[in-house]
Amino acid sequence: MNKKYTIGIDYGSLSGRAVLVDVENGAELASSVYEYPHEVMYEYLPDGETKLGVDWALQHPQDYLDVLAHTVSDVIKQSGVSKDDIIGIGIDFTACTVLPVKADGTPLCFLDEYKSNPHAYVKLWKHHAAQKYANKLNEIAESSGESFLKRYGGKISSEWMIPKVWQIVEEAPDIYDAMDKFIEAADWIVWQLTGVETRNSCTAGYKALWSKSEGFPSKEFFKSLNPKLENFVEEKIGCDITPIGSKAGEITPEMAKITGLNVGTAVAVGNVDAHVALPAVGVTEPGKMLMIIGTSTCDILLGDKEKSVPGICGVVEDGVIPGFMGYEAGQSCVGDHFDWFVKTSVPESYYREAKALGMNIHQLLRTKAGDKKPGESGLVALDWWNGNRSVLVDVDLTGMIVGMNLLTRPEDIYRALIEATAYGTRMIVDNFRENGVPITELYAAGGIAQKDAFMMQIYADVTNMNIKIADSKQAGALGSAMFGAVAAGSAAGGYDSIAECAGRMGRVKTRYYKPIPENVEIYDKLYAEYKELHDYFGRGANDVMKRLKDLKKSVKEN
Amino acid sequence: MNKKYTIGIDYGSLSGRAVLVDVENGAELASSVYEYPHEVMYEYLPDGETKLGVDWALQHPQDYLDVLAHTVSDVIKQSGVSKDDIIGIGIDFTACTVLPVKADGTPLCFLDEYKSNPHAYVKLWKHHAAQKYANKLNEIAESSGESFLKRYGGKISSEWMIPKVWQIVEEAPDIYDAMDKFIEAADWIVWQLTGVETRNSCTAGYKALWSKSEGFPSKEFFKSLNPKLENFVEEKIGCDITPIGSKAGEITPEMAKITGLNVGTAVAVGNVDAHVALPAVGVTEPGKMLMIIGTSTCDILLGDKEKSVPGICGVVEDGVIPGFMGYEAGQSCVGDHFDWFVKTSVPESYYREAKALGMNIHQLLRTKAGDKKPGESGLVALDWWNGNRSVLVDVDLTGMIVGMNLLTRPEDIYRALIEATAYGTRMIVDNFRENGVPITELYAAGGIAQKDAFMMQIYADVTNMNIKIADSKQAGALGSAMFGAVAAGSAAGGYDSIAECAGRMGRVKTRYYKPIPENVEIYDKLYAEYKELHDYFGRGANDVMKRLKDLKKSVKEN
Repeated sequence: MNKKYTIGIDYGSLSGRAVLVDVENGAELASSVYEYPHEVMYEYLPDGETKLGVDWALQHPQDYLDVLAHTVSDVIKQSGVSKDDIIGIGIDFTACTVLPVKADGTPLCFLDEYKSNPHAYVKLWKHHAAQKYANKLNEIAESSGESFLKRYGGKISSEWMIPKVWQIVEEAPDIYDAMDKFIEAADWIVWQLTGVETRNSCTAGYKALWSKSEGFPSKEFFKSLNPKLENFVEEKIGCDITPIGSKAGEITPEMAKITGLNVGTAVAVGNVDAHVALPAVGVTEPGKMLMIIGTSTCDILLGDKEKSVPGICGVVEDGVIPGFMGYEAGQSCVGDHFDWFVKTSVPESYYREAKALGMNIHQLLRTKAGDKKPGESGLVALDWWNGNRSVLVDVDLTGMIVGMNLLTRPEDIYRALIEATAYGTRMIVDNFRENGVPITELYAAGGIAQKDAFMMQIYADVTNMNIKIADSKQAGALGSAMFGAVAAGSAAGGYDSIAECAGRMGRVKTRYYKPIPENVEIYDKLYAEYKELHDYFGRGANDVMKRLKDLKKSVKEN
Repeated sequence: MNKKYTIGIDYGSLSGRAVLVDVENGAELASSVYEYPHEVMYEYLPDGETKLGVDWALQHPQDYLDVLAHTVSDVIKQSGVSKDDIIGIGIDFTACTVLPVKADGTPLCFLDEYKSNPHAYVKLWKHHAAQKYANKLNEIAESSGESFLKRYGGKISSEWMIPKVWQIVEEAPDIYDAMDKFIEAADWIVWQLTGVETRNSCTAGYKALWSKSEGFPSKEFFKSLNPKLENFVEEKIGCDITPIGSKAGEITPEMAKITGLNVGTAVAVGNVDAHVALPAVGVTEPGKMLMIIGTSTCDILLGDKEKSVPGICGVVEDGVIPGFMGYEAGQSCVGDHFDWFVKTSVPESYYREAKALGMNIHQLLRTKAGDKKPGESGLVALDWWNGNRSVLVDVDLTGMIVGMNLLTRPEDIYRALIEATAYGTRMIVDNFRENGVPITELYAAGGIAQKDAFMMQIYADVTNMNIKIADSKQAGALGSAMFGAVAAGSAAGGYDSIAECAGRMGRVKTRYYKPIPENVEIYDKLYAEYKELHDYFGRGANDVMKRLKDLKKSVKEN
């Protein structure tokens, strides 16, 4: 039998990337990235005229289709393998990234009638304008004692599906009425590939309040949000939840033309970009937390038992690997943080210097920052430029930095931002441990983990733990490809379970990061400072961040 | 009789500037600036090898002599007036900017033997490495009930003379022994001009703990700091204190050659750059606070009575205008703040945009920031990049900024830094008022006050007071020139009192800044946030800034 291959596509915040891998060992033969032409829409719709409100973040679904068209044929061509030997394809996506569509799957924003309405577009995970609905939802759920709350750290995020749909009901009821379905982009793209609408258990569990044992919240609960939402689940979701690891369907003739795959190629049900990566580093057991570090960081951890952990994103039975509780936590602003910094706060001379040295600006800043010792910058930052996901679950928090003087240099601030994200990770680790979910080892995946030894060493020093790094540059895409191989099944040359597949296709690098004791000692002190400021600004002692945000809103609206 | 002229030289932190003015009305005929070749030495001595410690800030006295050589002849030449009609010259200087010299006035750093010793150089006002001596001095003075403390807001700054000399005694006793005099740069340069050593009452009063009624602190007090300091006043100051408004001496033949002035031209006793500016805006009465806005801001205010005001720099009888109590307060980081920002934190694209629009970078940032409303940035900063002078008197405080998100732009931060300095000013105003020293009107002098209408409007809005602007671009130099005219006296075509002189030569612009009520309302809210953070970080609730600074020091020293 010929060698078999599988394709994974990882849809990130700014681009989609496909990999084509060897089913036997996960070796990557080709990869291809396509950047979304519309990027993230923060301020205007594509018409350049329709202004978005504060905290909006939209995307255009055409960009997702374009990813299919550009990357799949590209990896096939690059690899030189025959499409006959490609047995499956899997998809993962940012979540909750969600859009309103018609019954045939057409996004409302594709229709002239709706294309000037912001609510017709994809609400990206980081769309935070539904915060007030999330706040109200949390109040209502708490006062009516909804059982789902304990699975989500006690608080629902505005990034999730129900606050987002509630915002549409309140602010654009015509869009709510016009949509036949409200669907995760992950499931939508799988629908486009297969012609079959499925809803995967991972996004349903982590983002739409569904659980294997309890299902969705009750109609009464939905009604208490808004009477129009009473039948939201039946009317706008409307089909069963399909477990991850299942086959969603097969490539349609239309999609075969667009992608260059054979008609009938197996397509896995959708998955979330973070969760899908755990088997890609070979982890299928408790105690090993995987950090998928990208624009934001998602932390995925397996546990034996369901524990109630405050401030996590969620715990979902069979949500990551069948047979385990899958815990998710996260940090809202990691790569985004450093990007913001190099775009807004690094002087021209540094770009010139980087160019002269043949480095990119991040490499230069890391080199300069690395010439100094921990503590030498005199700075501590709170990594909340995009709110705080875990453990405060509060998008209204903002950034803070303290300790600047006239000799503070860009590399000092850059390092402080990196350190802040490491302190944020330690908060998450400590929080899991304090609530009975053990963590003994860290794993890291994503471009930053691969490229940034400086940052990974800081993470090892701050958390005082070893950190192993995904061997694949595209752990998400590899994980998706693995789910593709499982969708195809052993009969087609794939696998029958993700655990078996992870044992063969998942890998970490030989070199890993070990904490340096003298750095650990200094970072213990700095972390204590971070923690005090974290609690002061984040737990109500001084709600200045919220008051400033409110004032900003009221000023902008006047 | 021919028209008469007078020259003033204002020595700032980065340059010296001379003006030649008409004695009749203060009109400026010529001005000339010379930038110090050695700038401020923060990290190395001029040899490029001898490394300075944390918080050091030195200058080279040769730069001060070069200012005389370059600027005086230049203004004479530019103006076309005869040197016979130049009746006097006055000098003002940053303070306490102080150097060790031999008995003939030769700076120790001019001698090969000492030129590699950092303690042989000028300690600039912002040299903050004597902080621990200032702290100890304050403890000792408080426990022994020294009467001088109440004149200085209850706390002596590390920027002043006694902590600076104490640092030399402790860290470089050989330099202490080798110096015959320890002298303010203001008095040293007057000595160089006239051959006569004088010590002016303004620096002695504000920076060396001297008062008209009590003299210097006792020998017992100095001995309690360090036995070697017991006779510091006699041994290293050693001459009488000369009241401001007096004549120090006359231009020597050597200096006539260097400056192009006539031998015998009257030279006023030295003065401080801020204090000297009050008569230049025509103020010789209580209730009108002058802000001299430069790299830092000095606030000068007259009062009828001596009040004990916590956190001010000092109150000195006859220290500014004879017959009044002269109050001084200040902010350590104003122009320095914005310079730091544009040098370290503004991206290339902004420089390109500024160039394309024919603006400098500050103008561009002000234009962009001015397009937004107060409160729209969502940011609040603490303006402590260079410590806090008033009202906390604590150089170990550092900068803080809160409220950033991923849409925060450089102009937002720039504006927040400007606003932070305005809040700092309001803290000072409120503090004076709360302690019985009335303020009804603000005056502003210095380059920023002249050029930056955006910033001045923010100051008016934040303080809710009118702000009048010095008509002269060089209020300090004009003030010095006025003291030159008083040194010459009416017999030579000058004046016999500074009050009389101020009535003729001092002026403000016709256009002044009025608070805009809707901005005042928003800034009241933002100021409340500033105040809460000010007290949290500055008054002991969380000493994180100090701990970070200590950690930084210990890391650097290891």
